[in-house]
Amino acid sequence: MSASKNRQLLLKEVPKGKLGPEHFQLNETDVQQPGEGEVLARVRYISIDAANRAWMQGTTYRAAVKAGDLMAGYALGEVIGSGDPKYKQGDLVFGDCGWQEYALRPAPEFTKLPALEPVTHLLSVYGVAGLTAYFGLTDIGLPKEGETLVISAAAGSVGSVAGQIGKIMGCRVVGIAGSDAKCEWITSELGFDAAVNYKTEDVHSALRKACPDKIDVYFDNVGGDILEAVLFQTNANGRIICCGMISGYDGELPLNGPRGIPGLLVVNRILMRGFIVTDYMAKFPQAVKDLAGWVGEGKIKVREDIVEGLENAPQALIGLLHGENLGKRLVKVS
Amino acid sequence: MSASKNRQLLLKEVPKGKLGPEHFQLNETDVQQPGEGEVLARVRYISIDAANRAWMQGTTYRAAVKAGDLMAGYALGEVIGSGDPKYKQGDLVFGDCGWQEYALRPAPEFTKLPALEPVTHLLSVYGVAGLTAYFGLTDIGLPKEGETLVISAAAGSVGSVAGQIGKIMGCRVVGIAGSDAKCEWITSELGFDAAVNYKTEDVHSALRKACPDKIDVYFDNVGGDILEAVLFQTNANGRIICCGMISGYDGELPLNGPRGIPGLLVVNRILMRGFIVTDYMAKFPQAVKDLAGWVGEGKIKVREDIVEGLENAPQALIGLLHGENLGKRLVKVS
Repeated sequence: MSASKNRQLLLKEVPKGKLGPEHFQLNETDVQQPGEGEVLARVRYISIDAANRAWMQGTTYRAAVKAGDLMAGYALGEVIGSGDPKYKQGDLVFGDCGWQEYALRPAPEFTKLPALEPVTHLLSVYGVAGLTAYFGLTDIGLPKEGETLVISAAAGSVGSVAGQIGKIMGCRVVGIAGSDAKCEWITSELGFDAAVNYKTEDVHSALRKACPDKIDVYFDNVGGDILEAVLFQTNANGRIICCGMISGYDGELPLNGPRGIPGLLVVNRILMRGFIVTDYMAKFPQAVKDLAGWVGEGKIKVREDIVEGLENAPQALIGLLHGENLGKRLVKVS
Repeated sequence: MSASKNRQLLLKEVPKGKLGPEHFQLNETDVQQPGEGEVLARVRYISIDAANRAWMQGTTYRAAVKAGDLMAGYALGEVIGSGDPKYKQGDLVFGDCGWQEYALRPAPEFTKLPALEPVTHLLSVYGVAGLTAYFGLTDIGLPKEGETLVISAAAGSVGSVAGQIGKIMGCRVVGIAGSDAKCEWITSELGFDAAVNYKTEDVHSALRKACPDKIDVYFDNVGGDILEAVLFQTNANGRIICCGMISGYDGELPLNGPRGIPGLLVVNRILMRGFIVTDYMAKFPQAVKDLAGWVGEGKIKVREDIVEGLENAPQALIGLLHGENLGKRLVKVS
């Protein structure tokens, strides 16, 4: 390897309100060579996820990202140096590389990935996003044929795959998204049965219209008012897949939870369950096999929204939090 | 049968705020004889449940009780006339007899009960209360040995049984109740490991002290602020049994739900699930067998709080909503 400098982005300051470019700072370090048990990867693509913002709010399923820290982020890397016999030059690896050009990590923090084309699929449909959609539905929501499945952030990386899996499972699929272009995309291109634009429509009445048999399963990526609207229209024995709460990530944590909890859960025997995709790691191979089958048959269309250049990662995340992406957003580093 | 008059209590007016005696009205009707397919029962004990108040708030898993209606309520009756060959004089039956001395109902609305002594146990430990505790734990909460189980309304009919089942299952059991006498009773008599008096203690810090390993399973009978306090101290993979929300029954419905939903559910992979005990009807015989075994071995102590006289049913319910009962409250009618 020839590079000796590593550009990286630090979280300069923890945002109190909305995340802005001023909260990041470019930094340069020397690239260190891997010691025994370590792997050095050249970062190729960084996955931009709403959860990145949540990590700044405090400890979650991982330690908080604090002021001065390297900004955390999952990424796809290529091994360029290895102090572990299980990794060799050219291997593709997945891990929390952080927002930088080169990541030096203990080998067990990486997961080796198969070589396939396009490699970006390893971060979208076969990565955290696609797997999250897959396990949310197949382990928690368990939609049955003919049931109505509602999905929020439906044009996002998880939602767009979840909706297509819902169609494969035989559901009526209704997506909630934040622009007419997104609503148009998920219905005409991805095969959703209906879409609700939560920015221009009254969500309660639009859902009533889009879900004549009410709601059986809700794939919740946003929390907040939309979760509340869905709760009040959920059928007996409904299931709510708690995947994320984008509505609460970019600012102070909400003061209130949704009304109807626990009352509606009791009366309608509703299940709500949160999950983190990494809990299903042992089942990833089967999931990727299923997803690849559906992609191959054209039943899942994959859309990636690729931003060029590490230095644009902050704006890529800020824009994602404002809902500007269609499909999976990635930053191409090298 | 000799009686010809049937005293009953009507809901005179749907309460807007707290329930009071002025919302009920005594009425007298003639006792009608059963036609074909009908059963006439003399009401012996009426079950007083917090849910009775919730039924006045609107449609739940049953139609709302409206102004002018006979007040609804589960009860234990004795058949005194039958137009159905499956029921004969002297049979004990369970059903929504309402608050009255004689109940005439289509036969399928009754469930025949075994004769056992004391018969009141058919409405407490072997009735809705005990069965609710049983299925909430064995089908939803699934506490494991060594886990911490927290129970609200712990000195009530459901909570007091749930806590004792939790001990049988090998849990650390912590009860939340509204008086020192209740806290004393559940710890000294029923074997709970600790108790929190939510009226005199700060629930957050008292729970932290009582649950050094945090909370794995929460049997929620109250909702509201206590649910929120528990949520923030629930371990990864915790389970919340949504059984009721007494805190919201006696007055307007709450404006807000608990904070931390869905955020904490996601981060900590928490499950919340509501249930209604009658969904488990097919499994009642096994449950009653288990409960009877534990009662026989002295592992479950049954406490009943019996109020004499139909005319005292309103005050019995009002008092229950204010938390004055220990164990299962019943009204002895005859």
